[in-house]
Amino acid sequence: MEASTCKQDVLQKKKNAVLVDGVILNGPITDSKAGEKFVEEACKIIMEKIIQKADDVTEKVCEWRAPETLKKILDLEMRDTGESHQKLLQLCQDVIHYSVKTNHPRFFNQLYAGIDYYSLVARFITEALNPSVYTYEVSPVFLLVEEAVIKKMIEFIGWEEGDGIFNPGGSVSNMYAMNLARYKFCPEIKEKGLSGLPRLVLFTSEECHYSMKKAASFLGIGTENVYFVKTDERGKMIPEELEKQVQRARKEGSAPFLVCATAGTTVLGAFDPLDKIADICEKHDLWLHVDASWGGSALISRKHRRLLHGIQRADSVAWNPHKMLLAGIQCCALLVKDNSGLLKKCYSAKAAYLFQQDKFYDVSYDTGDKSIQCSRRPDAFKFWLMWKALGTTGLEERVNRALALARYLVEEIKKREGFQLLLEPEYANVCFWYIPPSLRKMEDGPEFWQKLRRGMREGNYNLNSTHIQWTLIA
Amino acid sequence: MEASTCKQDVLQKKKNAVLVDGVILNGPITDSKAGEKFVEEACKIIMEKIIQKADDVTEKVCEWRAPETLKKILDLEMRDTGESHQKLLQLCQDVIHYSVKTNHPRFFNQLYAGIDYYSLVARFITEALNPSVYTYEVSPVFLLVEEAVIKKMIEFIGWEEGDGIFNPGGSVSNMYAMNLARYKFCPEIKEKGLSGLPRLVLFTSEECHYSMKKAASFLGIGTENVYFVKTDERGKMIPEELEKQVQRARKEGSAPFLVCATAGTTVLGAFDPLDKIADICEKHDLWLHVDASWGGSALISRKHRRLLHGIQRADSVAWNPHKMLLAGIQCCALLVKDNSGLLKKCYSAKAAYLFQQDKFYDVSYDTGDKSIQCSRRPDAFKFWLMWKALGTTGLEERVNRALALARYLVEEIKKREGFQLLLEPEYANVCFWYIPPSLRKMEDGPEFWQKLRRGMREGNYNLNSTHIQWTLIA
Repeated sequence: MEASTCKQDVLQKKKNAVLVDGVILNGPITDSKAGEKFVEEACKIIMEKIIQKADDVTEKVCEWRAPETLKKILDLEMRDTGESHQKLLQLCQDVIHYSVKTNHPRFFNQLYAGIDYYSLVARFITEALNPSVYTYEVSPVFLLVEEAVIKKMIEFIGWEEGDGIFNPGGSVSNMYAMNLARYKFCPEIKEKGLSGLPRLVLFTSEECHYSMKKAASFLGIGTENVYFVKTDERGKMIPEELEKQVQRARKEGSAPFLVCATAGTTVLGAFDPLDKIADICEKHDLWLHVDASWGGSALISRKHRRLLHGIQRADSVAWNPHKMLLAGIQCCALLVKDNSGLLKKCYSAKAAYLFQQDKFYDVSYDTGDKSIQCSRRPDAFKFWLMWKALGTTGLEERVNRALALARYLVEEIKKREGFQLLLEPEYANVCFWYIPPSLRKMEDGPEFWQKLRRGMREGNYNLNSTHIQWTLIA
Repeated sequence: MEASTCKQDVLQKKKNAVLVDGVILNGPITDSKAGEKFVEEACKIIMEKIIQKADDVTEKVCEWRAPETLKKILDLEMRDTGESHQKLLQLCQDVIHYSVKTNHPRFFNQLYAGIDYYSLVARFITEALNPSVYTYEVSPVFLLVEEAVIKKMIEFIGWEEGDGIFNPGGSVSNMYAMNLARYKFCPEIKEKGLSGLPRLVLFTSEECHYSMKKAASFLGIGTENVYFVKTDERGKMIPEELEKQVQRARKEGSAPFLVCATAGTTVLGAFDPLDKIADICEKHDLWLHVDASWGGSALISRKHRRLLHGIQRADSVAWNPHKMLLAGIQCCALLVKDNSGLLKKCYSAKAAYLFQQDKFYDVSYDTGDKSIQCSRRPDAFKFWLMWKALGTTGLEERVNRALALARYLVEEIKKREGFQLLLEPEYANVCFWYIPPSLRKMEDGPEFWQKLRRGMREGNYNLNSTHIQWTLIA
């Protein structure tokens, strides 16, 4: 195009401009070509600096800086005018440089590690599509995918049918379950609330995840009404102690309604004896929820699923494929055995502007009213694409490998001076003490342990092999 | 490398293989080169099929298929063995093809539309880094970014100081606020629960978001203890009616503790009169929460921030930059005026394995214990990068343009036969009736309205201009 034509074009556009409240309305608000180029250049950086380096052990896991130092390095301030693309790309590089590389083979901090290329692609797709999963008309594919994934997960739990919903975290899944159990126990609470009712009481083990207390407090039940059941030397709930606690609660005149068992505790990786716990729940008519956020993935392995023996007797299960299976944070499902619509009855608010009942398709696909959220992310999709890519066998290998690595680590610890295994692991958590040289010749006894505990920062570690966690046991 | 050397190499590797429980442990579990290539090819598809088509009005918003048909088209089943990369890339194309294009200029369904390239890049970065935001040691950059963004949002609310947390949705933000107000009212509820206490009562308008009911039910307060205050003809809470409701609650012997005002209602886009409501809250010592999930973005515009006049008097505010500002789902902050640690006191469970107090940096950066979640996504980052790119002025333009578009639409509706405006909008929601030809000559009166409402599917629409929503008003 010649310059003169171009100028004419601009003048013509100005002439036709629709001006409302000082804003020119016609024409795009952003320069899409420049925007696309920016995305392309940023993707190159992401590819080179994150994805291609994911399995490079020669890279640092973290370029550590203290908060005040890092603040000075990063230009955090948001200003009146925007920055150039060049400056923004530099910022992106800095953000990557100073972030922890959770994909790194030596990232030993939390319950996950390593990169999964398929779930990553799924996440790029959903970020680009930017959907919200409440009604079929706005998220057709992602609702069908969620249905298929939930069905498959239910199959692995061993239920004949069921229901479920992906939500933002194992903690939230546990809250969902607690509220659902309460609704089943007394549906009126939804409208009337807890005021004036006897104390509702739930039971969980001493080794449970801290979200149990958070949930009890958030749901108005109160942390004191979480009765913690003693665990054995392996961190498993003792069924006889549970029985005692239920009887104690009944004697007090409170209202037991729920047992939360744990399949894969955070620190020891312990699995509660689900079958025996289910017997007690049946006897006392209590809802059985299994927090399998961490341990649920073992269900995929024919070799290790026996760890969750009895899980098919649970009323609800929390299971996070973003941990050992590497589906990317967050990917968490609450699964429910009931198939009579309990989840919907418990959670629905029947917002007429969103969930019209006279649509031209089967509105049972509008699952948004089962959720405590309104906008909701399509978290099932990344698990689905990964599953399609690897097959069940590939997922199974991931689990088997994690547990084999834990076994290997145990043998190495046993061989090495200055390390003492805390207990033989049954899952991927390996707990051990590091004995500082000054204590290695000391006799085992109260004084030894007092000194070891005092020097705990270099003492007791919980190494969660491969998908992985270093934590101090307090 | 020659074939013979290569074979020798493989044999050598096999010889050195560490075999535990039938799993070979050395060497990578995945083919990273193939994985990277898959990501590259998928990124090309995402670029071509989503990003480059984002502003193309000639594309369809949705290739609609009914659930049963779509199930047949998509190969949803997860099998024992994985699929080839070629098959997976085809699957990705299908997923994109049949998904709703929420970036499309003619996506008129929910409270957002259009693409923001900067927040998208930020989301690609965080998906690739896969962080979880609880402690500084594992998310240094994202915790500092969240702090900076919250500080800036607080500045726009008009508080001198404050606190806050990004969380998965406006509904969840409202729950956070409700629980926080309850904790302030009676801290003991955290431990003791609601049992045996007088009925806690909260107030909100008839036009509030449905999450208020969900929150009251989830938190054990009960939906009947949400007292709905009448609204005026513009959908705004009537302060005198609020006063009456508070007095009614007191007379009943219940315990009022919270008023939830709305800044930008879902259907009408109405803003409650915050200043007058704040007077009543002060008088009765009630927590004032403002659900500005939708309307909060107007705070960025010097021209339109008067809509939220008085918001600085609120105790907490919910604000979702993923709606009008286009930061990508989900990007939602709960902001709290208190700066004495109320948020942490209310939510902490003090998990010793995660939140050790004797770390070598300032542990006030370990904000995870303020959250109801354990793993948490770095949602502040996408808002931050977008803000850096556009500057406050760019964000302001986005708001001004949305509201100017609404004005333009109103003028067009007024000009056009068969359309009737419901009310002059004050925000981006434009509510109107479409009058079917058969009713256009009919006199305004009870019969007319009865017929119009009966044919509602082609009747009353709420068009939320640009960032945008078509909804039926039930």
